[in-house]
Amino acid sequence: MEERILALIEEKKYGLLRSELSEINPADLSQIFEEIPENEQPVIFRILPKELAAETFVEMDSDTQQRLIEAFSDFELRQVMDELFMDDTVDIIDEMPATVAKRILRQTDANTRKMINQLLDYPDDSAGSIMTTEYIDLKKNMTVDEAFDRIRKIGFDSETIYVCYVTDAGRYLLGFVTIKDLLLSPKDRIIGDIMDENVIYTTTMEDREKVADMIKKYDMLALPVVDKENRLVGIVTVDDAIDVMQAEVTEDIEKMAAILPSEHTYFKTGIFETVRARIPWLLLLMISATFTGAIISGFEEKLTVFPALIAFIPMLMDTGGNSGSQSSVTVIRSISLGDIEFSDLGRVLWKEIRVALLCSSILAVINALKLFLVDYLIFRNFDLGKAVAEIAVVCITLFCTVLVAKIVGCTLPILAKKIGFDPAVMASPFITTIVDAISLCIYFGVAAYILGA
Amino acid sequence: MEERILALIEEKKYGLLRSELSEINPADLSQIFEEIPENEQPVIFRILPKELAAETFVEMDSDTQQRLIEAFSDFELRQVMDELFMDDTVDIIDEMPATVAKRILRQTDANTRKMINQLLDYPDDSAGSIMTTEYIDLKKNMTVDEAFDRIRKIGFDSETIYVCYVTDAGRYLLGFVTIKDLLLSPKDRIIGDIMDENVIYTTTMEDREKVADMIKKYDMLALPVVDKENRLVGIVTVDDAIDVMQAEVTEDIEKMAAILPSEHTYFKTGIFETVRARIPWLLLLMISATFTGAIISGFEEKLTVFPALIAFIPMLMDTGGNSGSQSSVTVIRSISLGDIEFSDLGRVLWKEIRVALLCSSILAVINALKLFLVDYLIFRNFDLGKAVAEIAVVCITLFCTVLVAKIVGCTLPILAKKIGFDPAVMASPFITTIVDAISLCIYFGVAAYILGA
Repeated sequence: MEERILALIEEKKYGLLRSELSEINPADLSQIFEEIPENEQPVIFRILPKELAAETFVEMDSDTQQRLIEAFSDFELRQVMDELFMDDTVDIIDEMPATVAKRILRQTDANTRKMINQLLDYPDDSAGSIMTTEYIDLKKNMTVDEAFDRIRKIGFDSETIYVCYVTDAGRYLLGFVTIKDLLLSPKDRIIGDIMDENVIYTTTMEDREKVADMIKKYDMLALPVVDKENRLVGIVTVDDAIDVMQAEVTEDIEKMAAILPSEHTYFKTGIFETVRARIPWLLLLMISATFTGAIISGFEEKLTVFPALIAFIPMLMDTGGNSGSQSSVTVIRSISLGDIEFSDLGRVLWKEIRVALLCSSILAVINALKLFLVDYLIFRNFDLGKAVAEIAVVCITLFCTVLVAKIVGCTLPILAKKIGFDPAVMASPFITTIVDAISLCIYFGVAAYILGA
Repeated sequence: MEERILALIEEKKYGLLRSELSEINPADLSQIFEEIPENEQPVIFRILPKELAAETFVEMDSDTQQRLIEAFSDFELRQVMDELFMDDTVDIIDEMPATVAKRILRQTDANTRKMINQLLDYPDDSAGSIMTTEYIDLKKNMTVDEAFDRIRKIGFDSETIYVCYVTDAGRYLLGFVTIKDLLLSPKDRIIGDIMDENVIYTTTMEDREKVADMIKKYDMLALPVVDKENRLVGIVTVDDAIDVMQAEVTEDIEKMAAILPSEHTYFKTGIFETVRARIPWLLLLMISATFTGAIISGFEEKLTVFPALIAFIPMLMDTGGNSGSQSSVTVIRSISLGDIEFSDLGRVLWKEIRVALLCSSILAVINALKLFLVDYLIFRNFDLGKAVAEIAVVCITLFCTVLVAKIVGCTLPILAKKIGFDPAVMASPFITTIVDAISLCIYFGVAAYILGA
């Protein structure tokens, strides 16, 4: 399809192009646009039907949007902006350089401009910043028929018509009705009689992650948002909630990999921004690893007596790190899904300890067999007493390290959450650094005891 | 609220209880149910209004569902099942032991039973397994008014009425209309004239993750599903798509932490199931770490000459691992969001190399300063020549390790995706093991060159 479209553009067959493009979904169309030569983009955009043009515009990346806006006449700009929902307009303005943003605002009427400025003022992660102000509000004393009249009147400009909100004269939220309720009720029923008063809502300052969680939990198509005075000011729709969920997951995954969250997609993040996001944790963890080094330094002399012990350090550190990160990542994800709370700490510990005992036993036994069969029998001069002692040191350390790693791994995220830190930070890299130090202490302790080192 | 409900149960104030419970949302009510003593649960369930009871039942965990089903009479069971949507019924049957599943099936009529068995047959991760068969189908030659009549007739039993599908006599999908289109059209318009023929659909065997991606990409409330013969057989609604997205993210996060994905929540997964999910990667990575050990063994003699070098092994390994996992996790997430494809490999490499050069320079310089100022000046007998040589070895290794780690970290997930493996597996633990071996080789190589070790 894409090739055909690009060929039509080359041949300048604009009539055919218009009818072909009109059949394409805005989401796909915005991707095709990114393939069109930049200087052709405004021309092609102009041949789209008005509504499709606006819907496609919303889906484009901000560079393409900016390029188009700069090519638009004021009249064209106003035409596109008129078709947009308020939340999309605000998102676009948010991404534009100040001069472009100002030009957009100049094309809107005073009321809209006031509204946009209000929405721009909400903190980035708040419900207010992702809500739209276009919804259908009904009055309690309307009949079902009157409600349908109102939906027909303002439905074109409303982001969703499937849920309608009932407000009083002071815009206080009284309840809601769905289109389903309206369709399945007699035409002369009063809205006040069929509305559901148990309306779930949120406030403008609520964290957008919580908003998305509510929409998910209650299977909602839209969540109403009220201001400090409890007046209905907007709704958050399910498609925007999905975008928030995705962004929050990306943020969590980045934190788990010791990266400071960034706002942009991979290629939209500049080199310096990427470095700024990655270097702090690398530095911190590098400095922390000094302690591990200090532990080794403390045992340096003894290691020169039993040099074979050095070779096992990476295996012990890696296995400890992996065991710990399995537990921490599992617990972090369960916390964010709401499956684990602070009061579950005991149960989590009890489960992880049993899992750790089983895992560490299996690992220790298989490691002992492997060391004995492969490393000693085949590769080394065979000295039974020494081999058994060394294997014992390694496997006992392995057993203890895995146990400690899992306990540390499952405890830290829960404690972090309790004291108000983000549990996601307590993932692999952080756990690895701690477990490294502990496992080396265990290693040298066990070695000292068994080998007299 | 929960305390008040539990108190009312204790006092057996069932009348008051019924009116209190009726005000609560099914999602919240199902959570309250888990707090009610098990033997009281059936009693309280029976007080609920029929529709609310069924909606709450769907939200419960499978243990509570099973307990209730076992307490139900056949008549009660049939009553609850009659209220459920087909996809929920299938999900519940899927989770029940065979005897309970059979009992549920016996309470359904022959047609429904046939349908359920068909749905149960779809593979676990397919569109067929998450779709529901209750949707509104219209005919092309209906008027808008006739369409509303049909919606009123079958709307009660349909999971969503907001999108209606137009099919021909052979159930082939011709197009769709939204309730919004219907409401905004004159009553005598013909459906065929207002329907949108550019309908986006999927097939029963499509991967459920792709289905969720489509619903997200096109901001859909429901996605129609057709069978092999292109006949409409069901729809996937946005709330189910959100559940799929969440499950897929959990799976990805587990894979990144070297855990085999499990189906259940943390506490619902047994000890043995947890061990089975965690031990394979631990074993594999433990065995792989043998190579790292072998590298150290090869340099054992030289290490005894320069024992100070041993102390830096953990720091070098950890920093390498962290740098690599930052790149791999970023790339893995970008692949799953569709931001990075195989054709981007060159661009990704170019970006990561520049980021790596900056990061590794910063780390090397700060590490050199720290070693010189803190470790050597304060803690050691000062021997300038030796100190500078050792610091040079460590910092050059650090520089090279970070560079290699980032290149390996960004390349492997993209290659894995290309040859059909899951990129998520190429995350921290796997990268760490590879980077460990490489960084030690670099370390000993640099040491041999500079120190003549």
